[in-house]
Amino acid sequence: MHSSPRIAIYPGTFDPITNGHIDIIQRAAPIFDRVVVILAINSSKQPLFDLAERMDMVRASIGGLPNVEVASFGGLVVNYAKEIGASVIIRGLRAISDFEYEFQIALMNREQFPGVDTVFLMPAERYTYLSSSLVKEISRHGGNVENFVPSAVLESLQRKFRRNQQV
Amino acid sequence: MHSSPRIAIYPGTFDPITNGHIDIIQRAAPIFDRVVVILAINSSKQPLFDLAERMDMVRASIGGLPNVEVASFGGLVVNYAKEIGASVIIRGLRAISDFEYEFQIALMNREQFPGVDTVFLMPAERYTYLSSSLVKEISRHGGNVENFVPSAVLESLQRKFRRNQQV
Amino acid sequence: MHSSPRIAIYPGTFDPITNGHIDIIQRAAPIFDRVVVILAINSSKQPLFDLAERMDMVRASIGGLPNVEVASFGGLVVNYAKEIGASVIIRGLRAISDFEYEFQIALMNREQFPGVDTVFLMPAERYTYLSSSLVKEISRHGGNVENFVPSAVLESLQRKFRRNQQV
Amino acid sequence: MHSSPRIAIYPGTFDPITNGHIDIIQRAAPIFDRVVVILAINSSKQPLFDLAERMDMVRASIGGLPNVEVASFGGLVVNYAKEIGASVIIRGLRAISDFEYEFQIALMNREQFPGVDTVFLMPAERYTYLSSSLVKEISRHGGNVENFVPSAVLESLQRKFRRNQQV
Amino acid sequence: MHSSPRIAIYPGTFDPITNGHIDIIQRAAPIFDRVVVILAINSSKQPLFDLAERMDMVRASIGGLPNVEVASFGGLVVNYAKEIGASVIIRGLRAISDFEYEFQIALMNREQFPGVDTVFLMPAERYTYLSSSLVKEISRHGGNVENFVPSAVLESLQRKFRRNQQV
Amino acid sequence: MHSSPRIAIYPGTFDPITNGHIDIIQRAAPIFDRVVVILAINSSKQPLFDLAERMDMVRASIGGLPNVEVASFGGLVVNYAKEIGASVIIRGLRAISDFEYEFQIALMNREQFPGVDTVFLMPAERYTYLSSSLVKEISRHGGNVENFVPSAVLESLQRKFRRNQQV
Repeated sequence: MHSSPRIAIYPGTFDPITNGHIDIIQRAAPIFDRVVVILAINSSKQPLFDLAERMDMVRASIGGLPNVEVASFGGLVVNYAKEIGASVIIRGLRAISDFEYEFQIALMNREQFPGVDTVFLMPAERYTYLSSSLVKEISRHGGNVENFVPSAVLESLQRKFRRNQQV
Repeated sequence: MHSSPRIAIYPGTFDPITNGHIDIIQRAAPIFDRVVVILAINSSKQPLFDLAERMDMVRASIGGLPNVEVASFGGLVVNYAKEIGASVIIRGLRAISDFEYEFQIALMNREQFPGVDTVFLMPAERYTYLSSSLVKEISRHGGNVENFVPSAVLESLQRKFRRNQQV
Repeated sequence: MHSSPRIAIYPGTFDPITNGHIDIIQRAAPIFDRVVVILAINSSKQPLFDLAERMDMVRASIGGLPNVEVASFGGLVVNYAKEIGASVIIRGLRAISDFEYEFQIALMNREQFPGVDTVFLMPAERYTYLSSSLVKEISRHGGNVENFVPSAVLESLQRKFRRNQQV
Repeated sequence: MHSSPRIAIYPGTFDPITNGHIDIIQRAAPIFDRVVVILAINSSKQPLFDLAERMDMVRASIGGLPNVEVASFGGLVVNYAKEIGASVIIRGLRAISDFEYEFQIALMNREQFPGVDTVFLMPAERYTYLSSSLVKEISRHGGNVENFVPSAVLESLQRKFRRNQQV
Repeated sequence: MHSSPRIAIYPGTFDPITNGHIDIIQRAAPIFDRVVVILAINSSKQPLFDLAERMDMVRASIGGLPNVEVASFGGLVVNYAKEIGASVIIRGLRAISDFEYEFQIALMNREQFPGVDTVFLMPAERYTYLSSSLVKEISRHGGNVENFVPSAVLESLQRKFRRNQQV
Repeated sequence: MHSSPRIAIYPGTFDPITNGHIDIIQRAAPIFDRVVVILAINSSKQPLFDLAERMDMVRASIGGLPNVEVASFGGLVVNYAKEIGASVIIRGLRAISDFEYEFQIALMNREQFPGVDTVFLMPAERYTYLSSSLVKEISRHGGNVENFVPSAVLESLQRKFRRNQQV
């Protein structure tokens, strides 16, 4: 029907990827021709996992989705979108606390480059209150996060926090 | 890349269609192969404009978009989506007051039919606080709504509220 | 440890009771000695089910909980609490849209009678976006609500909306 | 410093005026040269008190403030502001539920007439959850609202709801 | 009526305890058989007062409540609850900004250990906007916080910030 | 009409001043006799621009407004207000995320000194999602912020982030 493929990017820190992120990726995959999960090389925040670890965990989690890829980027998300010809930025909207921040970012991105627009998807309600920060916090104190992250992430968290598992 | 066209529906009462709705339609049009604006035959709310008037105003407002159509429906939105093979429901998210209601509806729709998912788009910020109700309220009191509705709607409103224009 | 039993009331219209309400009742039951579900004889709202029907559905849904009862009341909730010696009003908090309304009511109740305080419980996340209104709306259009209401309510809804099941 | 007096209007239904409204008026009075409390002749909502009753209650409540007056208006608030040379519309912001509605109205008013702007004041926290509707609801059921309304309103409510006082 | 006592824990940093916290404790005390205020040994946040100071201030503030105790904990709150046989976690809900965070934590706690549930209480409205952070900020700049904290805390703050009292 | 001039202060960090701040200043200027923009000498946050730079940018941006001045302050805002005889604190309310924080501060300020009250103004909707932090973030990554800040700020940002402009 139309010639050029529709490419969407799904940017984030993914420190680490959670089942909530994966839920969003699975919802986006059938809507777009290609979905590129892009990991921010975010210098200001100090991530728990380095870029290579975070990319490995994302890759291990999206194996079954043929039109989904992983990449990393520095700088502005819209510049990356422009570079690879993406016309859509995907964001998950979990709760109201996300809402205004996401709108602010989306409007700024439009301002920077009107050729790319943001599309919001809603995760399953069981992931509404899930976040990477909370997963790390619980895992750090030896709590159980197996319902919240894929198995590759569970193992990585256990390796990072081994000392705390006894606590 | 994939064979079946992606069809999205944009349901609403559109009593009347505003520039905010049109902004959402214009953002959706390039993302999907076909966008069907569907007007609820909503028996519980008493609309200002009848179904034929509302459909005429929508048609007059989306002329330039070749892959956008108008239709009407009774019953549940997901049933209509199923019927025409749509996999996406489009909703505009303007403000937090929309948020929880839209999430509730989206989750219920998923429950009714998991084969269709909801995608949220954000209108331009100048339409953040625009609503059909407010347009009607202002127009009823003789206020000026020409920046908020397309010209076909402006004329219809003026005809409806002629008596009040002098107030 | 303390002599007088702790009685809590759970007021509402329950038109009809949903799995979300039942979830709250099940959480409240082990915390208090006695939980009284009280149905408002609400003259301003026109309920779908009359008081007797609503009470029957509540009764059929709470059978397994020995310290939970059903009653009805007119007038102010705090007066009923005072009458039966209840010191706690239970309310479910689903989402932000509930929040301010519930706080307003809770503060007014405190003002009317400081001897009774409001305790908020959170339903399971799968009920976060569930409401009696939405259940009625979907059921009216022939949608499937079996995951949202107990079986006694499902049957009552089907009887009420038989004509629409074919739609 | 500047020659023309600063006139502010405080529009509302005031059905009836509460201590929260009076708190806002008392905060506005020292900021502006003249504050005009204007009562909407609102045909769509059916008020409990008619316009004359509502105006009497406002007048009885603002006696001690020499630069505050009462008036009524039909039509758009901005037209009234223009007519009397007011440059400011005063609104109380109690809670988040007010926020988006008030912003919507304020933006529309700006659009209608940029010469008048909206200024938001915050009532004392003890009035955060107070509303005319709640006062009426409690009074209707024989509850005590003496901390929420001035004495003139208390008497009017008691007259209206005399039958219910025994309940 | 039931044999085992109902134990509730009220976890927090209490850096320092405010009148808002005390209001919640006073509301919880009559509802449960035993209330244990537990102070997080929180390694990530750097508190103004060390654990011993914070516990002393809590103890000095709850003297009159015979069924309220103070303790400290490291690790996950639910583990502590399990250890002492508590079935309820108490949290104060002041405002919407608390809401989503508290829900996230409550859901995670349920996931970790379903045998303990969270109960939300609402402080008096005069404490709605009160927080330990704000109290410290104002005290640091020599402002007056005597209406917001018990006298033991007031003295401790004055000792900490003596240098700034002249500012 | 009244003898003493009405002085309002508009406190903030202004790191840097944005078009959203200027919009608020322009709305406040005609309402008050004198508006003093006061810059916090905020020791806890590490600003991008030092106090002298921030004051220069504010001065360069408000040139056309004869009754607007710039000053700086340490300590509590209310003390500064008291010192210069200001009776009003001006705050911009952009979005719900501002709301509760601003209310908290406003109530604390009232508590500290009831003689000064807070007045909230709403910026134009195109500035609803604008913040100094976002401007810095985008500028740091070489994005374009010319629609969001006055020209003096644009130049300062470009000087600060010269190295990143090529990215």
